[in-house]
Amino acid sequence: MTFVEKFLGTRVLITGGLGFIGSHLARRLCAAGATVTIMDSLVPEYGGNLHNIADIRDRLNVNISDVRDRHAMKHLVRGQDFLFNLAGQTSHLDSMLDPFTDLEINAASQLAILEACRHHNPRIRIVFASTRQVYGKPRYLPVDEDHPLAPVDVNGINKLSGEWYHLLYHQVYGLHVCVLRLTNTYGPCMRIKDARQTFLGIWIRLILEGKPFKIFGDGAQRRDFNHVDDVVDALLLAATHEQALGRLFNLGGAEILSLRELGELLVEVNRGGEMEIVPFPPERKAIDIGDYYGSYAKFQAATGWEPCRPMRDGLEQTLSYYHNHYSHYVDGGVLPRPAPPGGTAAPAAAPSYEHQSLGVS
Amino acid sequence: MTFVEKFLGTRVLITGGLGFIGSHLARRLCAAGATVTIMDSLVPEYGGNLHNIADIRDRLNVNISDVRDRHAMKHLVRGQDFLFNLAGQTSHLDSMLDPFTDLEINAASQLAILEACRHHNPRIRIVFASTRQVYGKPRYLPVDEDHPLAPVDVNGINKLSGEWYHLLYHQVYGLHVCVLRLTNTYGPCMRIKDARQTFLGIWIRLILEGKPFKIFGDGAQRRDFNHVDDVVDALLLAATHEQALGRLFNLGGAEILSLRELGELLVEVNRGGEMEIVPFPPERKAIDIGDYYGSYAKFQAATGWEPCRPMRDGLEQTLSYYHNHYSHYVDGGVLPRPAPPGGTAAPAAAPSYEHQSLGVS
Repeated sequence: MTFVEKFLGTRVLITGGLGFIGSHLARRLCAAGATVTIMDSLVPEYGGNLHNIADIRDRLNVNISDVRDRHAMKHLVRGQDFLFNLAGQTSHLDSMLDPFTDLEINAASQLAILEACRHHNPRIRIVFASTRQVYGKPRYLPVDEDHPLAPVDVNGINKLSGEWYHLLYHQVYGLHVCVLRLTNTYGPCMRIKDARQTFLGIWIRLILEGKPFKIFGDGAQRRDFNHVDDVVDALLLAATHEQALGRLFNLGGAEILSLRELGELLVEVNRGGEMEIVPFPPERKAIDIGDYYGSYAKFQAATGWEPCRPMRDGLEQTLSYYHNHYSHYVDGGVLPRPAPPGGTAAPAAAPSYEHQSLGVS
Repeated sequence: MTFVEKFLGTRVLITGGLGFIGSHLARRLCAAGATVTIMDSLVPEYGGNLHNIADIRDRLNVNISDVRDRHAMKHLVRGQDFLFNLAGQTSHLDSMLDPFTDLEINAASQLAILEACRHHNPRIRIVFASTRQVYGKPRYLPVDEDHPLAPVDVNGINKLSGEWYHLLYHQVYGLHVCVLRLTNTYGPCMRIKDARQTFLGIWIRLILEGKPFKIFGDGAQRRDFNHVDDVVDALLLAATHEQALGRLFNLGGAEILSLRELGELLVEVNRGGEMEIVPFPPERKAIDIGDYYGSYAKFQAATGWEPCRPMRDGLEQTLSYYHNHYSHYVDGGVLPRPAPPGGTAAPAAAPSYEHQSLGVS
């Protein structure tokens, strides 16, 4: 795509750059000829993982620091052309158990980042990754950007603050920002250790380990999904397209699946596995939102973006990746059974999925 | 009103209780037979002023502490039947100059208060005072609660977080909360030292001092106003009416005035004075919202509340109060001219306006 050429020779900072989405973005930017600096706290409960960039480690700068470190932040934003602001606490349950940490990372630190940009690099172009969680339980489907906001957890509230700080700093100080509300993103390098980022991650771990994975409720709840490569396209467009400047957009998936359908697809692609439909635990029921899928029509109209990676192919690619790299994502983990026929079971030295075709098994 | 009887023998905590609205509320609750504890930081830039409760000082408990003091908060919420959560940083301009303090007071401390209630007093009934500022520039008038949210300053963003934390803790933990979005509140004890709380405050100071007051823009911007006694009625209803539980409401004024009309009314009531229509300073223009007036139909339908204090009478009462108490509100201030004919110019030992009839001049 031609928009990738706009990054040749530019300097790019990615907060949360060792995370799932950040590392994919970094790889694409390195390939596009950008000078990339990754900033990541490597807080164990979050998404950062050095293995995510093992294949590009010598092609970028890695700065281990936390967005809560305001002095480091001031230094790091200087001289950058782009900031992809992906660092965040993303767990809904963690935000309820420790609301102050969520606030510090998702709201206060965003304010600090914007103040740093305003004072030290007012021409920087910023993309902020937000979440569909801000809408809460949908009143209508698909959810567009005019849908009322009703966050159902502390995380959603604080992410909204983060969004609004960005848009406000555009309106009042002229900072160049774009806000994207991401839906469920999946792909290689997603957190599979636990359910902190997404339920699909833990499903993938369990099915690889030959254990049943759980679906809460009746499995009829529908969701949309974006492959991480589609999300990287969206981030790059958001950073460069003039129609994205100062605006807020949903992403969204082209395929809408119920959780039961997704589970069945996962079992099919994995050539085996078991899912269990179980009642909601009370603490999850309290923040469940029922069906959700978003409209990406506004972003498509502005930038031409549309998700193009089929779910089936993406799940195959993801399972294949974790067959090869499982031990880097689950502490002390070794897969208890061989890869399925046709999979590449031997552990690779570095992530090589990007060179694999999508259909791996 | 019968709802006042519900406070007889109850224990009530008011954060920001030395402020403009908090002190009026405290006085009403003392009269209703409640045991009142006021918590206030007395930060000089905010609204707290010990003179506001000079007449009831021996009838309530005053605890000088800041809502940012989480340990004090935990102690103070215990054993209370009601919490009127009025403490806040209210200045729009200050929130842009020092966004972190605004966040700490209006968002982080609210979370801490709710955590304290959840753990130490889950049956407490809470009313949170928010602001019309969360709507930003109106898309339609009057603004109702379904109006899109688009805060135009850091204060509006953080107040929204404060609201949502309250509503979330109701939904998830069953805390008994009600959120009111206040519009321009005026009356005796309002801050007149500067424009930090409302433009009307500084107008009153200037007209009392015989100086011209400034209207920015063309003076055609319309606003609604609530007399503080109407707001106290609303707070008491919000705390006791079952239809208010877990809900969010606008307040709003029955009289809509342009700033020019308000200025003319003030000059008329004061029997003299001068206003100047001047262009917007750039930093104010950036956060100006044009016309605003709110619909209070939802709160009226739920509780029967409606504003009943006429603007003209309220302004007369307010001017009269400051003729008598000016020196307590402007550091080292002495009025440079006598009170108008019929006014009571001699300084009173304690605020006695509550015993005055509304028509004082």
